[in-house]
Amino acid sequence: MKNNKRIEICEVGPRDGFQSVCNYIPMQTKLSIIERIIEAGVKSIQITSFVSPKAIPQMQDAEELAKICLERYPQADFSALVPNLFGANMAAETGLKKISYVVSLSESHNRANIRRSHEESFEELRKIMGGLPQMEICLDLATAFGCPFEGKKMPGEGVAFLRPYVDLGIKTVNLCDTIGVANPAQVRETIAALNETYPDLILQIHIHDTRNMGMVNTLAAIESGIKTVQSTLGGLGGCPFAPGASGNLATEDLVHMLFEMGFDTGIDEQKIIEAAKYESKLIDGVYSGHIFKIGSINTN
Amino acid sequence: MKNNKRIEICEVGPRDGFQSVCNYIPMQTKLSIIERIIEAGVKSIQITSFVSPKAIPQMQDAEELAKICLERYPQADFSALVPNLFGANMAAETGLKKISYVVSLSESHNRANIRRSHEESFEELRKIMGGLPQMEICLDLATAFGCPFEGKKMPGEGVAFLRPYVDLGIKTVNLCDTIGVANPAQVRETIAALNETYPDLILQIHIHDTRNMGMVNTLAAIESGIKTVQSTLGGLGGCPFAPGASGNLATEDLVHMLFEMGFDTGIDEQKIIEAAKYESKLIDGVYSGHIFKIGSINTN
Repeated sequence: MKNNKRIEICEVGPRDGFQSVCNYIPMQTKLSIIERIIEAGVKSIQITSFVSPKAIPQMQDAEELAKICLERYPQADFSALVPNLFGANMAAETGLKKISYVVSLSESHNRANIRRSHEESFEELRKIMGGLPQMEICLDLATAFGCPFEGKKMPGEGVAFLRPYVDLGIKTVNLCDTIGVANPAQVRETIAALNETYPDLILQIHIHDTRNMGMVNTLAAIESGIKTVQSTLGGLGGCPFAPGASGNLATEDLVHMLFEMGFDTGIDEQKIIEAAKYESKLIDGVYSGHIFKIGSINTN
Repeated sequence: MKNNKRIEICEVGPRDGFQSVCNYIPMQTKLSIIERIIEAGVKSIQITSFVSPKAIPQMQDAEELAKICLERYPQADFSALVPNLFGANMAAETGLKKISYVVSLSESHNRANIRRSHEESFEELRKIMGGLPQMEICLDLATAFGCPFEGKKMPGEGVAFLRPYVDLGIKTVNLCDTIGVANPAQVRETIAALNETYPDLILQIHIHDTRNMGMVNTLAAIESGIKTVQSTLGGLGGCPFAPGASGNLATEDLVHMLFEMGFDTGIDEQKIIEAAKYESKLIDGVYSGHIFKIGSINTN
């Protein structure tokens, strides 16, 4: 029974959470947080992104941080985000075996975010897969549910878009609600449509809590059969310069709900809450998590 | 199709939200917020509670406020919370046709909250029903999912507890997650168990957002067949002296999700968001709502 209800939470705070913090976080601080995440039982962690330090200064330590993590925690399942072949090669050189390559379902968002057309993004991925045949690659489909420029995305759009990627050999797609506009009905319909067309494709989900639907959309995805979901410690995310903008779904809130519902995440509730508290004391940022702020979750 | 997906949102901010604010809110301020809630299309509003002004000074204006509301908005569906016969009689004297009578599923919480045993609470209700045979009475079942003293509540406990109340003639029960500990699986199981034993009993739900499950539990209830759900404007609630304690589920966040999912609440999204913004500028408090803080929900 337990095995059927196993859910893998991929912690993306060290990438998506830290990225939202403007002041550089010293690498030793980042490492101390990653250590607590691992000690809480999290296996899968996106530790950084290999991007231009000019674009995102926070990630300037990507190479060194990745090398240290790989050496310290050989059993962990680490990955990094890459926007291009250059980043993918850097990730490979550190010894990482897993990367997430990001493309937006919305072409206008892809141009704004990655400065590429859809065709250029696809060609870049082909080069990465050709140059790094051993690398495990997850396709991060940004704006999978909606885009600030193009509006709502219907399920059929993602289905059509992914055809060449699946044909190219992509086996895992992470549906990213980049701007936090998905709703549970849309999440269910999108997953159902993708499952129907690509029954062998492994889907993951990455939901932002912007409109208070972090938990409800992630649960909708899990109850639609998704086994790997992303979240960030404390819900760190958003932007400290946009008042009220809430961040990611909080890992510890998700762990708590799934535990209460009988799912098995392999993560220790108290330790992950302590990790969120620890992080929030060290790093100023926008934290959307509830439970670490109220102190305790013990109700029984 | 639309009619099948009609959901009634009962706005309880003027009672449960205002009650969490320590400084007295002038009655004219309360009335100006109620006016905006009504203008946004909300029909059902819990406007106050008839309690001792010593116990809850915020509600000292209950009688006058109820009279003004009833005179100004004859089409609205107003109710008030009452803890006892004295309060019920006061409510009736103002002209209110609908009250919520509160009893905790947990006897220890009932004693702490209402200073009565279960038996005493039941006897008091019998007196209210005898004395006010025309009054429409909703039974607010507090700590329906869990209690700070007695822990988690299993579905069977509520089923057994409600038998004498249903036999007495109670037709509507509002399941209150008083301390915010319910999870979606528990909500579904509880509703299913109650539906099985009491197929004619009308159920409502009142969920707190304490552990980030306000939306997910309320949606679980709706998808289990519940047609009336409670929430507060802006998510006002909790306690300003308990740092990090988050409040109620925010009406405008719920309206937005339900609208996006094709449900019909009859409430204007933009107007209810504006009402939440208006309230948050006038009243200092703990607001758990997301959308009114980010400014706009237009994504299409």
